[in-house]
Amino acid sequence: MDIATVVGLILAFVMMAGSLVVMGMMGHGTVNFAAFVDPPAIMMVLGGGFAVALVGYPLKNVLGLAKVTMKVFFTKPEALNHLIEQLVSLAETARRDGLLALESRAAEIEDPFLALGIQMAVDGTRPETIEEVMRTEISSMAARHKEGKKVIELVGRCGPAFGMIATLLGLVMMLGNLSDPDAIGPSMAVALIGTLYGALMANLVCIPFTEKLSLRSHEEQMAKEIILRGVLGIQAGDNPRTVQQKLNTYLPPKMRPGAQEAA
Amino acid sequence: MDIATVVGLILAFVMMAGSLVVMGMMGHGTVNFAAFVDPPAIMMVLGGGFAVALVGYPLKNVLGLAKVTMKVFFTKPEALNHLIEQLVSLAETARRDGLLALESRAAEIEDPFLALGIQMAVDGTRPETIEEVMRTEISSMAARHKEGKKVIELVGRCGPAFGMIATLLGLVMMLGNLSDPDAIGPSMAVALIGTLYGALMANLVCIPFTEKLSLRSHEEQMAKEIILRGVLGIQAGDNPRTVQQKLNTYLPPKMRPGAQEAA
Amino acid sequence: MDIATVVGLILAFVMMAGSLVVMGMMGHGTVNFAAFVDPPAIMMVLGGGFAVALVGYPLKNVLGLAKVTMKVFFTKPEALNHLIEQLVSLAETARRDGLLALESRAAEIEDPFLALGIQMAVDGTRPETIEEVMRTEISSMAARHKEGKKVIELVGRCGPAFGMIATLLGLVMMLGNLSDPDAIGPSMAVALIGTLYGALMANLVCIPFTEKLSLRSHEEQMAKEIILRGVLGIQAGDNPRTVQQKLNTYLPPKMRPGAQEAA
Amino acid sequence: MDIATVVGLILAFVMMAGSLVVMGMMGHGTVNFAAFVDPPAIMMVLGGGFAVALVGYPLKNVLGLAKVTMKVFFTKPEALNHLIEQLVSLAETARRDGLLALESRAAEIEDPFLALGIQMAVDGTRPETIEEVMRTEISSMAARHKEGKKVIELVGRCGPAFGMIATLLGLVMMLGNLSDPDAIGPSMAVALIGTLYGALMANLVCIPFTEKLSLRSHEEQMAKEIILRGVLGIQAGDNPRTVQQKLNTYLPPKMRPGAQEAA
Amino acid sequence: MDIATVVGLILAFVMMAGSLVVMGMMGHGTVNFAAFVDPPAIMMVLGGGFAVALVGYPLKNVLGLAKVTMKVFFTKPEALNHLIEQLVSLAETARRDGLLALESRAAEIEDPFLALGIQMAVDGTRPETIEEVMRTEISSMAARHKEGKKVIELVGRCGPAFGMIATLLGLVMMLGNLSDPDAIGPSMAVALIGTLYGALMANLVCIPFTEKLSLRSHEEQMAKEIILRGVLGIQAGDNPRTVQQKLNTYLPPKMRPGAQEAA
Repeated sequence: MDIATVVGLILAFVMMAGSLVVMGMMGHGTVNFAAFVDPPAIMMVLGGGFAVALVGYPLKNVLGLAKVTMKVFFTKPEALNHLIEQLVSLAETARRDGLLALESRAAEIEDPFLALGIQMAVDGTRPETIEEVMRTEISSMAARHKEGKKVIELVGRCGPAFGMIATLLGLVMMLGNLSDPDAIGPSMAVALIGTLYGALMANLVCIPFTEKLSLRSHEEQMAKEIILRGVLGIQAGDNPRTVQQKLNTYLPPKMRPGAQEAA
Repeated sequence: MDIATVVGLILAFVMMAGSLVVMGMMGHGTVNFAAFVDPPAIMMVLGGGFAVALVGYPLKNVLGLAKVTMKVFFTKPEALNHLIEQLVSLAETARRDGLLALESRAAEIEDPFLALGIQMAVDGTRPETIEEVMRTEISSMAARHKEGKKVIELVGRCGPAFGMIATLLGLVMMLGNLSDPDAIGPSMAVALIGTLYGALMANLVCIPFTEKLSLRSHEEQMAKEIILRGVLGIQAGDNPRTVQQKLNTYLPPKMRPGAQEAA
Repeated sequence: MDIATVVGLILAFVMMAGSLVVMGMMGHGTVNFAAFVDPPAIMMVLGGGFAVALVGYPLKNVLGLAKVTMKVFFTKPEALNHLIEQLVSLAETARRDGLLALESRAAEIEDPFLALGIQMAVDGTRPETIEEVMRTEISSMAARHKEGKKVIELVGRCGPAFGMIATLLGLVMMLGNLSDPDAIGPSMAVALIGTLYGALMANLVCIPFTEKLSLRSHEEQMAKEIILRGVLGIQAGDNPRTVQQKLNTYLPPKMRPGAQEAA
Repeated sequence: MDIATVVGLILAFVMMAGSLVVMGMMGHGTVNFAAFVDPPAIMMVLGGGFAVALVGYPLKNVLGLAKVTMKVFFTKPEALNHLIEQLVSLAETARRDGLLALESRAAEIEDPFLALGIQMAVDGTRPETIEEVMRTEISSMAARHKEGKKVIELVGRCGPAFGMIATLLGLVMMLGNLSDPDAIGPSMAVALIGTLYGALMANLVCIPFTEKLSLRSHEEQMAKEIILRGVLGIQAGDNPRTVQQKLNTYLPPKMRPGAQEAA
Repeated sequence: MDIATVVGLILAFVMMAGSLVVMGMMGHGTVNFAAFVDPPAIMMVLGGGFAVALVGYPLKNVLGLAKVTMKVFFTKPEALNHLIEQLVSLAETARRDGLLALESRAAEIEDPFLALGIQMAVDGTRPETIEEVMRTEISSMAARHKEGKKVIELVGRCGPAFGMIATLLGLVMMLGNLSDPDAIGPSMAVALIGTLYGALMANLVCIPFTEKLSLRSHEEQMAKEIILRGVLGIQAGDNPRTVQQKLNTYLPPKMRPGAQEAA
């Protein structure tokens, strides 16, 4: 679970509630949280964002949004150093007992991408074919990630407009009801909340989600790249030390055992 | 028919109507849908968008807009796996009975681009010439798609300004009529609707349409690229299995029979 | 004459007038077209746009604006198929009667760039020199077009600010005159018109003009590229059919005799 | 002196004054130019712009701003044709009397970059070294120009925010003083002027200055490139005609003696 | 300590205070600095900016923000000429007394990156390995810098929205409290301050900080590049003069002893 995403979202709402409470304490009126739950604006901003996604992307991409969003909450960055240790250990087995000995260790491999690579190596597939197959998987994964991100980007770009549309609908409604002066204040308040929701959807959710998805996608690609290099080294019968040295260059200096940091 | 486009557009309008109904139920005034049909603003936003397109692009590109827009509603993504099956089946015929046997199957080929390629192969055109001719078609198609998209992009970029212009016209009109206080509310409401229309034109229509056109154009190019590779393989007398393997790399892993997905 | 530019500009103004008339008919006040002719705002938006152009570009580029603007109104796209026919006909003459025979046809050549190329070919200039000279002309033409376009882009980018400045001047003036309540409405109206003019200058004129200039520049470069290839083919004594085939690849499939369209 | 910059700036202020005078004549109030000189807004916009520059760039870059700004007012584009004539004349001297004869003409060379090049040629420095030294100078000059431009760009990007901040300060001040209704108008007017100043700083000064600096930098680089090519040609003992022909390709066709223009 | 950053920030606040004092002197109300300290808006803008950072980046990047911010205040640009002098002096020692003699000078080397390079050279590591190791450090440092900068960029992009959200919260609160007319002014003032804070956070802090971080990162990379080139030259036993000449090309002409400036 990505604690930061959850903490960030909660923090924003805590801050909004806190602001209102402090404003109340400063004498700017009675705090009424319910006034900030505005069903028409929720319909307009969520519905409008969903509508934009449907107009801009095919149904299957939009339905995939839920899965993509999960990524922002639940992806735990892969521990690259553990991954490298596992690859080095596999390289030791292969070096000591031959490639076929890896078959006995297949059960302990959880990552399906690593399992695919080891299986191909055990099967005696040619290195070029292994590289081609695994690279195709990596780039099709990157393409899927990018598609998912683009839907959220589109919603973040057009979303604030739907907040403004909710506000405009409210204002037009209010202007047709001017004869009741007491209703102007609350109607105006309800109208403004649309703009608030639109701003939150874009700036708290869509834009930061896009950033986190980019980062996660980059991390996953790097993990898969490490696996690819490791599998090729194992198949070539490289010395486990050499495998480790090569793969370590993917890690930041601090995480590499025995390396000094330079800035 | 691209259901998502239609559903998205309808959803947005349902959400707007629903918002108004809920606002009415919450006591912010009587719902009057007719108040949101604002002929001067419609003239200004649609007319202005059309005017911008004419100033920015030649007449023929603007007239082509209708055809381009159809694409957003009616393009069914080509079933690439069926296309690959058809190419593999043609490769089998060619391998078994010779290239000339393909002529008898010409009738069942619906795609004019595939028909062109098979015809050239049957006619004994040299592979380089086939590739050059087909590639020219692909890139001129891509250029046509891009031109169509740019007109919509321009309208999406300048459109909100015409909504604002409608609002400004309404406000200026209202300000010249301040002596009648009862008219201020409705006049102001009518003015604001221009901004609403401009926001819808850009954010619900033009920007998402541009995204979908990009995607569709990309899919069509990929389909044509598959056909090109397939025709060249058929002409070269490649084994149908080899043809299938090569073409499968264009598909996402899930859609390829017998492949495992890795993320 | 580029009808679309003229029609687009007129259409926008017709739509504005129509909107006002319809608003009048809907009872939002008396239509007063004169109220939309606002000399101070005209001074501010046109003068400001001109001032920005002068600050940002040297005098000669700004004075060249008039010529550049003419392009948006009067450029007729060159009929590339006629150009190719002319080149093929010249190739036939050269093939039949020798390069020197082209001299007798010099009078019928209107395009100065084609005349230059043919003259050099007749003079026996070396192909590399012809290509270098003609390519220099093409790229210096492209650079001139780009410079002209950038002035209009700058005005389109900073122009709306001058509309806003006109509005601010009007508001400050109005706020100093609050003692006369009857003047507030008209003063406010006059102020808003500045914003309207700024929006029109950028969104109806500058931005779409930039797009059309890009397109026209691209077309001119392509025409000159066709001439260059044609002249080199003629000088090399290529078969007129070969010349035609090569040059046809610059045309969209529909415009090429005997080609099938594929999308 | 770059007349256009000065004329542009003056024109903008004349237009503002003229707009106010015309508004006065149209009956929208008495013109009071002093009302537009707003010391708090001047402090906020100029001070804020300067503050942003200091936060974003080291002290020496910000202090260099004055020198950079001078460029926008005082740079006279180098007369490239005179420069070429001078280089051709030097080439004639070198061809007739030998490279050492150039030493006697050193006094008449004003441009320090040309003087450096000729001196190195006279000293018998190897061509590769001359090219390396001169190219390093050109690129370090380009880097200096770019740094200066980026400071102005930053001020242009963040400047309008300080205009808005001035307006917000004024509004907050006014809202704390609502008990005196007569003061609202003038206080509001003073507040709005901050926005006006911010818009002017960005759109009349920073953005167009950036454009002109780019252009001037490009011109200076081209002049230095011509000098570099000329010096190398002189040292190689090229025919003065060849030197002229080569250097002429840097000029637009119109400025080259004996060339025809093609568009 | 980077004086400019501190001076810039202080200057902006001095200008704001000064503007208010001058407005007070001009009779637009009593200056009340306390009115500009608005706890709910501070919570909303700082808390919202922090929340956005957490949603968009992993916890460790956000916690690294403090360290990154220190850079903007405390980085003293490395004195590249001193660095070059030190490298030349090390080169002289190595040339005179052999590579091993450098070991005795290790104590005087403060820069850990230079120490690492010299140590590897003394240890007889192969040049390719030295270059690979040091380049990996440089690029991983650049990547770390870029990540830190992107967090600040995200806050600068989404921050103004949280200022607007603070304003909207305040307005909604005020509209629910319209019955007390005396409270409208102060409530409105408090609401506007949110927008002011958002504008300051983005335009005075985040955007200029990003620029300064880019510059500092560029300077550090250049210093490390100089060290890398120097170490390789020392190991190769280059003449100290040659080492100096090569490294001098990284300095602007003015800072190089004996060079002439050309623009």
